Amino acid sequence: MPRNALYAQAGGPSAVINASAAGMIRACRQSSQIDKVFAAHFGVLGALHEDLIDTDMFDEITLDQLKGTPAAAFGACRHVLRDIDDDPREYQRLMDVFAAHDIGYFFYNGGGGSAHACLSIANASHQLGYPVVAVHVPKTIDNDLLYTDCSPGFGSAAKYVAISMREASIDLACMSHTSSKVFILETMGRYAGWLVGACGLAADHTNDGPHILLFPEIPFDERQFLQTVTATVERVGYCSIAVAEGLRDTAGNTIHATGAKDAAGDRQLGGVAPMLANLVSSQLGYKCHWAVADYLQRAARHIASATDVAQAYAVGEAAVAMALDGRHGLMPAIRRLSDIPYQWDIIGVPLQDVITGDRFVPREFIADDGLHLSDAGRRYLQPLIEGEDIPTFARGLPQYFRPPHERVTKRLPEFTL
Amino acid sequence: MPRNALYAQAGGPSAVINASAAGMIRACRQSSQIDKVFAAHFGVLGALHEDLIDTDMFDEITLDQLKGTPAAAFGACRHVLRDIDDDPREYQRLMDVFAAHDIGYFFYNGGGGSAHACLSIANASHQLGYPVVAVHVPKTIDNDLLYTDCSPGFGSAAKYVAISMREASIDLACMSHTSSKVFILETMGRYAGWLVGACGLAADHTNDGPHILLFPEIPFDERQFLQTVTATVERVGYCSIAVAEGLRDTAGNTIHATGAKDAAGDRQLGGVAPMLANLVSSQLGYKCHWAVADYLQRAARHIASATDVAQAYAVGEAAVAMALDGRHGLMPAIRRLSDIPYQWDIIGVPLQDVITGDRFVPREFIADDGLHLSDAGRRYLQPLIEGEDIPTFARGLPQYFRPPHERVTKRLPEFTL
Repeated sequence: MPRNALYAQAGGPSAVINASAAGMIRACRQSSQIDKVFAAHFGVLGALHEDLIDTDMFDEITLDQLKGTPAAAFGACRHVLRDIDDDPREYQRLMDVFAAHDIGYFFYNGGGGSAHACLSIANASHQLGYPVVAVHVPKTIDNDLLYTDCSPGFGSAAKYVAISMREASIDLACMSHTSSKVFILETMGRYAGWLVGACGLAADHTNDGPHILLFPEIPFDERQFLQTVTATVERVGYCSIAVAEGLRDTAGNTIHATGAKDAAGDRQLGGVAPMLANLVSSQLGYKCHWAVADYLQRAARHIASATDVAQAYAVGEAAVAMALDGRHGLMPAIRRLSDIPYQWDIIGVPLQDVITGDRFVPREFIADDGLHLSDAGRRYLQPLIEGEDIPTFARGLPQYFRPPHERVTKRLPEFTL
Repeated sequence: MPRNALYAQAGGPSAVINASAAGMIRACRQSSQIDKVFAAHFGVLGALHEDLIDTDMFDEITLDQLKGTPAAAFGACRHVLRDIDDDPREYQRLMDVFAAHDIGYFFYNGGGGSAHACLSIANASHQLGYPVVAVHVPKTIDNDLLYTDCSPGFGSAAKYVAISMREASIDLACMSHTSSKVFILETMGRYAGWLVGACGLAADHTNDGPHILLFPEIPFDERQFLQTVTATVERVGYCSIAVAEGLRDTAGNTIHATGAKDAAGDRQLGGVAPMLANLVSSQLGYKCHWAVADYLQRAARHIASATDVAQAYAVGEAAVAMALDGRHGLMPAIRRLSDIPYQWDIIGVPLQDVITGDRFVPREFIADDGLHLSDAGRRYLQPLIEGEDIPTFARGLPQYFRPPHERVTKRLPEFTL
C-alpha cells in the first residue's frame, strides 16, 4: 500500500530551497510507493500543529514556478527539538501526526540544526515504534555542512555576492579620482567565510576588486588591514573590500554585534561594514561607501546559479530515492568528481556523520596573507556559481510562487508546545 | 570638413550610462560630419588635462560590451566649473584642448550638475569664439532632472530595488513566525524619493511587501511609523519597509547622517536603515533585519531594465542628431506618449530650462497616508522597470568592458587646476 510523505523546510532560507521541494515532489509523484506529499506550514512547527498543505493542488506549471522561487515557500522556523530522553512529548506528537495522515516518509530540508533534528526523528521512529523513513535534504547558504561538496543555496548566494562585488568595484573605480576611494560589502557568514570568499571570484585580473577579503576564520589585524588599504589605494587608485558579518578579533570575539539576540540565543550580527568604513575614514581620511546585502544575498533568485539550482533539485529527487530504498537517517550529499569541467554525483551520507561539526574555509583556500583567495580556493568555488537560472518575469519583476491558503483537514486535537 | 567629437561622463554613474556612450559613438560613426570620437578620462577633468581615449579602437563587439557595462567606463568626476566671469581659465583651457584636437562637438553625459556645466561650456564657446556644439546627455539614477519623463539610469536602479524588495519580503515572510518580523531596505535618494517609490512596485497584492515606504519628501513621523509597523505585524505577520537615505524630520534635517562630507561638501548619507531597525527593536521589541544597497543598486547591470537601456541608448543617438543639426545647449529628453503600452519619443529641451530646478516625487504619486505609492505613482513608475536586459556572462559572472590604457598623444602643455 502506498503511504504519504511529509516535507518540511527549516532555518534561514535560500534562493533554491524550493527547487529541492520541486524535485522531491516530482520524484514522489513518479513513485507508486508514495501517494500524497504534504508540506508542513512553517516547518516542523507545522508538523507539530498538524498545519499541512496538500501539494496535490500544484500542477506542473506551478511546480516550475515553485522551483524558480526563493525563500521557504511553505514557511520555515527556528525550533529546537529537545533530546527525546529529556522530552519525548514533541516526538510522540510528531508520530501521532504522521499516523493520522499515514505518513511513511519524512523529508527535512535544512542545514546543520535540521540534520540533527532529522536524525532525532529517525531515531524516535524506532524508539516510539512508528515506522517512518526520515531523510535530510541539505540546504544552507553558509555552506558549512560536512560531507557534501557544497550546500544547495550557497552557489546562488555566492554568485550574487560575486556579481555585486564586481559591479560595485567598477562603480567605485570610475569615480575614485575625485570621490570615494574605498567600498566595503558585508556578506553573511557568522563562523564560515564561504560567502566572503566567493566575493573573490569577482577579480579576474591583477588589481581587479575586491582587493581585500576579511574571513571570520582569520583574526582581524587592524594594522595590517589599514596598511593594505593604503597600499591598495596608492597602487590601484581605490580599494574594494568584502567582509563577513562574523569577523572576529584575535580573542575570537566578533568585531561588531548589535545588542539583539535571535531565537536561538545567538547575538544578531550586521554592521561590521559601517564600522570598518568609519575606521578607514577616521584613520586614513578616505571617503568610504559601504553596503550590507543581508537578505538580498540569500533571496536573489533573479540571478541564481544554474549549477546550484540543478544540485538543489537533484538532492530533492535523490532524497526520495533514498527514502524509497528505506535508507533511514541519511542525507543526499554532493560529491565532486572533477573541477573542470565540474562533475558531480550524489551519494548518501549518514546523518550521524553530518552532525559531527561544521565546515569552515580551510586555511589552504585562503592566500598566505589571509586577505585573499588562494588558487585552491578559487578552484573550489568557481564552478559553484556557473550558469544563470533566471525565473519568469512579468511587468519587470520575477513572478514567484504564492503559498496557498488551503490546509489539510485536521484529525487530531490541538497541540500546545 | 568633418570634425571630431568629445564625450565625457559626469557624476555618480548608473547601470546604463555606457549604453548612452555606445549609442552616441555609433551615431557619430554613421555621420560623415564627424570623424573621430574621443572620450575624456575621468570626465571633464580628462578634457582639462587632455587625457583622451580614441574610441576608434573599439570594434562593434566591444561597443556591444560597452553597452552592457555599468558605471562610467571612461571614468567620471565631481568637478564644479566656476562661473566664466569669475574664472575663465578652465573654459579657455577646454577651448584650447578642443582646438588642439579639432573638436567641434561636445557631449556631456550626466545629471543636473553637468547640465549646468554643459550650458556653461556652450556659452563659453560663444564668449571665447571657439565653435563647438555642446549637447547634454541625461543620466541620473535619482530621476530628478526636469523636462524628461525619466532619467536614463533610474529605470534599472528602480528595477533592482523593486526586485530586491520583493525577494527580501518573501524571505522575511517565510521565517516571520519564529524569527525577524521587520526588514528595512535603504535606497539611495538624498532629496528625491523616486527609488524608494519604485520599491512599492514589488507589491502586487494586498498585504504584499513592502508595507511602508519612507520618502524624503514626506517628513518622518515616528509615532505614525511605529503604529503602522505594529498594525502591519499584527495584520500580516511581518512588515517590510523601504527608506530613502535622505529621510528628513519635520524641520527638514536628515534623520541620519554620518560625519563625513563628500567632495561637493554634502554630508555623506547612509545608515538610516540600521537607525530605524534600532528604533523598531527598542520600541516595539521586534527582531529586525536591514540592508543598505548603496552602489549595488546603481551598478546592477546584471538585471537592467530593457526600457532603461533602450532609452539610454536612444538619448545618446539623439544627442548626436541634435549636435549635427547645430542645436546648441540642448538636452535630448524622453517624452511619454502613453502609459500602457509605454510609448515615448525624444525631444530637445533647452538646458536653460533643465537647470531651473530638481524634480521631486509629486504629492499625488504618494498615497494619502504618505507611506505608500498612489495609483498615479504606480502608473508612472511601472513601465520604467519593464523588460530584462541581461549582459553576457562567462564562468558565472557578467563580462564587462575594460577601459583601455592607450591615450591620445597630448599636444598641449600640462594644465594645473
